[in-house]
Amino acid sequence: MKAEIIGIGTEILLGQIVNTNSAYLSKRLAELGIDVYYHTTVGDNPLRLYASIMRGLGRADIVITTGGLGPTLDDITLEIISKTLQRPLILKKEILRQVEDHFKRYHIKMPKSNIRQAYVPKGARWLKNDVGTAPGLIFKESNKMLVALPGPPRELIPMFERDLIPLLKKIQPAMSVILTRTIKTTGLAESQLHTKVKDFLKLSGSTTVGIYARPSQINLKITAKAKTAAAARKKISIVEKRMKKRLGKLIYGVDEQTLEGETAKLLKNRTIAIAESCTGGLLSSRLTDISGMSANLISSIVAYSNKTKMELLDISKDMLRKQGAVSRVVSKAMANNIRKLANTDIGIGITGIAGPGGGTSKKPVGLVYISISDKAKTFCREYHFTGERKIIKFRATQAALDMLRRNLA
Amino acid sequence: MKAEIIGIGTEILLGQIVNTNSAYLSKRLAELGIDVYYHTTVGDNPLRLYASIMRGLGRADIVITTGGLGPTLDDITLEIISKTLQRPLILKKEILRQVEDHFKRYHIKMPKSNIRQAYVPKGARWLKNDVGTAPGLIFKESNKMLVALPGPPRELIPMFERDLIPLLKKIQPAMSVILTRTIKTTGLAESQLHTKVKDFLKLSGSTTVGIYARPSQINLKITAKAKTAAAARKKISIVEKRMKKRLGKLIYGVDEQTLEGETAKLLKNRTIAIAESCTGGLLSSRLTDISGMSANLISSIVAYSNKTKMELLDISKDMLRKQGAVSRVVSKAMANNIRKLANTDIGIGITGIAGPGGGTSKKPVGLVYISISDKAKTFCREYHFTGERKIIKFRATQAALDMLRRNLA
Repeated sequence: MKAEIIGIGTEILLGQIVNTNSAYLSKRLAELGIDVYYHTTVGDNPLRLYASIMRGLGRADIVITTGGLGPTLDDITLEIISKTLQRPLILKKEILRQVEDHFKRYHIKMPKSNIRQAYVPKGARWLKNDVGTAPGLIFKESNKMLVALPGPPRELIPMFERDLIPLLKKIQPAMSVILTRTIKTTGLAESQLHTKVKDFLKLSGSTTVGIYARPSQINLKITAKAKTAAAARKKISIVEKRMKKRLGKLIYGVDEQTLEGETAKLLKNRTIAIAESCTGGLLSSRLTDISGMSANLISSIVAYSNKTKMELLDISKDMLRKQGAVSRVVSKAMANNIRKLANTDIGIGITGIAGPGGGTSKKPVGLVYISISDKAKTFCREYHFTGERKIIKFRATQAALDMLRRNLA
Repeated sequence: MKAEIIGIGTEILLGQIVNTNSAYLSKRLAELGIDVYYHTTVGDNPLRLYASIMRGLGRADIVITTGGLGPTLDDITLEIISKTLQRPLILKKEILRQVEDHFKRYHIKMPKSNIRQAYVPKGARWLKNDVGTAPGLIFKESNKMLVALPGPPRELIPMFERDLIPLLKKIQPAMSVILTRTIKTTGLAESQLHTKVKDFLKLSGSTTVGIYARPSQINLKITAKAKTAAAARKKISIVEKRMKKRLGKLIYGVDEQTLEGETAKLLKNRTIAIAESCTGGLLSSRLTDISGMSANLISSIVAYSNKTKMELLDISKDMLRKQGAVSRVVSKAMANNIRKLANTDIGIGITGIAGPGGGTSKKPVGLVYISISDKAKTFCREYHFTGERKIIKFRATQAALDMLRRNLA
């Protein structure tokens, strides 16, 4: 079964809002095994909306429109559906009652314009809106289905979950289910990882793998199509096992797992202290996004100035002068000293140049030294990151978390 | 002049990523007075991509595709453009050099697959990619223009700003221009701000105002349409002046300005030190996102544990026991002590409960005390924030920056 999504609203075409409905609907449809081949966005324009709905009904079994069901004159979805399906608009009393009830709940007099929302094309099945006034509508026309949903996600989502999912499950003879699993990696550049997993990316048929790169993080997404969810899960698990064997520690988690979350888990009851310079507190902030971190993260010092490095972290003036604040020795001393100062099991020291200023030919923007210290040893790695200031900060925290994770594992 | 945007990528149709490129491009095109009538999203499927490009070229003057320019086999945009325009793929040496340089910069051997990116349809003008390997491409075909841009926003946006905007400005005979201006506020809830600006939101015609709420930040967007940019700017400025008069200090900036950036400007040559508990380093990280902050932010301590509060921040055990770590007096002592410790002009102290655990009926999740201390005084404000852990952290930094900004202004 094929579906098509038509987003309606001039504000989307003006770039004033991002169309997140299409992503939400696509994801849910994919999970039901319904293919989506096109998203279209069109403005509040009668001719173009008419053409889009006609085209959609021509090439898909189900067309879902979002938006344009409001009370104002530029909301024309119902009018156009009335013309497309050649069904007259009629007053539906139950819908009018829902609209009136909505205003009563907020002790507001219903504006006359809202009566418009109760005039719907004949033969529609309507869906209750628990949040706003616009009803959802379902039309059946020979062997096609046209669904009109309100634009605001907080109205659309509950309606889709409550009414559409059960309906679609019924009419979609569970021929196929599409499931995905995201394998998350860090530590390699996209091209390097690409080389490593080339054969996976060439998979075709009912199981495929895609690669998605973000700064210092590359996801491999396994997608499997099968008759049942169990069969799809099995297909995924076969590929996942092979991938895990191949990539080993490059993988830090799957799906909704985060690098900070997985690293935090590995800490168990070990305590940690952090001395950050160029990352300015971002590493501490990412770790403290994880609930319960107060038992592990004893203290963190953002030693942005040399003064703080000397006074709070006990880095010698001599070392700072001879080697510079951005150096291997200073990074190691930061990790070692914060660990002793806070009396923790682990210390981390980060120093580098986030830019855009401050770089030299010997020490360019993006140069970052990260050290990890425990009772047994202190080791340091040198990195060269690219991107603008915020990206370099993020990449440095990503690398630090990865070093910590591998060290703990 | 009419433009159409085609997003390419099966991952969009599966709902795995949200298509933000279309919104960005639409916004910039609207500002140039170029109408966008359709967005289409299509998967990495040769036939459907071909049909979409043909349809786009049939109804628009400019077609912009995004995505599908990567080195892998499922990236088919160039192949399909080659077929659509009937132009053979040829090796462009300058592009190959750009791709090779990219890998050299990272000291990585170029995978063979990347050579593919240098084979482009004949007669293309190519645009340099400063971030990744995929070039942008421009094709002219009778009186139409086809533009292919890489999918990742961090590659697409700089390319569009640098090369496309000047080009489009030249060919678009500025018939009408739509400009927007975003007025940014913090400190009031949406419903409160809504009441204050109700009359603005009712504006209709060529100048309109929209309200967009995010956690602890509400934007008011003024949109004006006029024959020239100057006329549109004038329309905006009239509404903006009235809005500024009405809202005063609730407004912290406009358009791309950020709360941390505007607060940093007000610091001038004053020095600052921060003691963070529940925000875990996020306030320091947000301030250090601003270049040049090393001259102002002397040091920051994330005193997540009571031990650190006592040892590094000199908070008495007695105070912690009697009042609790989350209390007005501890927050004030944190601000005052970090200021003295780092010998700065200003000190900030934040203590609170980010949740989800740790709340009590007297001190619920979301309770946060924020203090600012200078030589003359130390003052504290009590907040009750809602949302999950990360949102509460963010709201607390938003409030702290706002307190600091108002105190400095």
